[in-house]
Amino acid sequence: MSDLEALTVRYQRFSAERDWEQFHDPRSLILALMGEVGELAELYQWRDKEAELQADPASQLHQRSAEELADVLLYLIRLADVLGIDPVSAANRKLDVAEERFPVDQYLGQAPDKT
Amino acid sequence: MSDLEALTVRYQRFSAERDWEQFHDPRSLILALMGEVGELAELYQWRDKEAELQADPASQLHQRSAEELADVLLYLIRLADVLGIDPVSAANRKLDVAEERFPVDQYLGQAPDKT
Amino acid sequence: MSDLEALTVRYQRFSAERDWEQFHDPRSLILALMGEVGELAELYQWRDKEAELQADPASQLHQRSAEELADVLLYLIRLADVLGIDPVSAANRKLDVAEERFPVDQYLGQAPDKT
Amino acid sequence: MSDLEALTVRYQRFSAERDWEQFHDPRSLILALMGEVGELAELYQWRDKEAELQADPASQLHQRSAEELADVLLYLIRLADVLGIDPVSAANRKLDVAEERFPVDQYLGQAPDKT
Repeated sequence: MSDLEALTVRYQRFSAERDWEQFHDPRSLILALMGEVGELAELYQWRDKEAELQADPASQLHQRSAEELADVLLYLIRLADVLGIDPVSAANRKLDVAEERFPVDQYLGQAPDKT
Repeated sequence: MSDLEALTVRYQRFSAERDWEQFHDPRSLILALMGEVGELAELYQWRDKEAELQADPASQLHQRSAEELADVLLYLIRLADVLGIDPVSAANRKLDVAEERFPVDQYLGQAPDKT
Repeated sequence: MSDLEALTVRYQRFSAERDWEQFHDPRSLILALMGEVGELAELYQWRDKEAELQADPASQLHQRSAEELADVLLYLIRLADVLGIDPVSAANRKLDVAEERFPVDQYLGQAPDKT
Repeated sequence: MSDLEALTVRYQRFSAERDWEQFHDPRSLILALMGEVGELAELYQWRDKEAELQADPASQLHQRSAEELADVLLYLIRLADVLGIDPVSAANRKLDVAEERFPVDQYLGQAPDKT
């Protein structure tokens, strides 16, 4: 079992022990995920590029980032678990597609345009 | 190397080959993460609880959920990588805290109140 | 001047007096907006449909919803102001389009599918 | 009636004519709001501060920003309407609080810290 699978199983057990599985339908988990993404966004909302890149691992910003990132990951793997999706396999399939879609010579130094 | 670490390294290489590392500062990645969370939310915005729980693995909803979930995971591990954070360790630390904070006997069947 | 324009001007003055205009570039405001949408999502993440519809105007949920809704609106009109966009005109143009795109007889009781 | 109230009433009628009121519970509208905030975030995810400030009103970025901003506003006022909240009054109350909480002399040029 990989470390991410172990985390998924740990969270499953945590939820089952508290009878919280009843709350973990997809819509509720997506709303919860948004709450955590919002907290991550708040950490960086007023910081310029320089400040954020100099972030010291011992700094409060680094610690808080790790905590919010962890919360996002937890709701994400719980959602994947509830939906019966293997998130790492799905992500590898997306990278397979991205490698085809964005050939190195054509996209070198060019961010894909979303406008 | 775990499967999540392998995915992180694969995405690192993908970014380096295209000289896209210059775009991957924390704020940009958080905005990109929001874009993908928004696509996930759109899949479920008008569905009631029943519909979403009956989701068939072969259904279009299941396929699309896997793709959007994958996109969220990819930007999340890229952000963790850029910030020098191990997301699985951070998530395990959060579950350590949650187990203490929400004792089974006190929170049985009770969602923590956010009001 | 409409009440929304008055609010926009009030927020402009609030920002100028504190020399906060320097922080109010589009990306920063979108991150701030995400933070507030996240707080709104947290209020409803574990509530089922019944509970939320019975929400009493005097309840804490109603009060908190009003506060978070207000925060979203404030960052939204600040963003519109910084970008030189009239949000109400833009919204009326979107409804013009939506009325054409979703004819009553074809979409009666049918949510547009996002899958 | 203010222009924002007129927009709210127009959206009410649009929803009633299509029998879409049944979809417009708070959680569904927050998920829809997230979808639109995500589209707004995508427009700016890979742009640096310079590019975005030079945005020409005739540019595609400006047009797209107006459209996404409009979508966010529409779901926001629909949510306010469903919850029985006057968003402009609520926002003015928030600015009353913010003016007290962030005195000019203490916060001049200082973004409030969210770390």
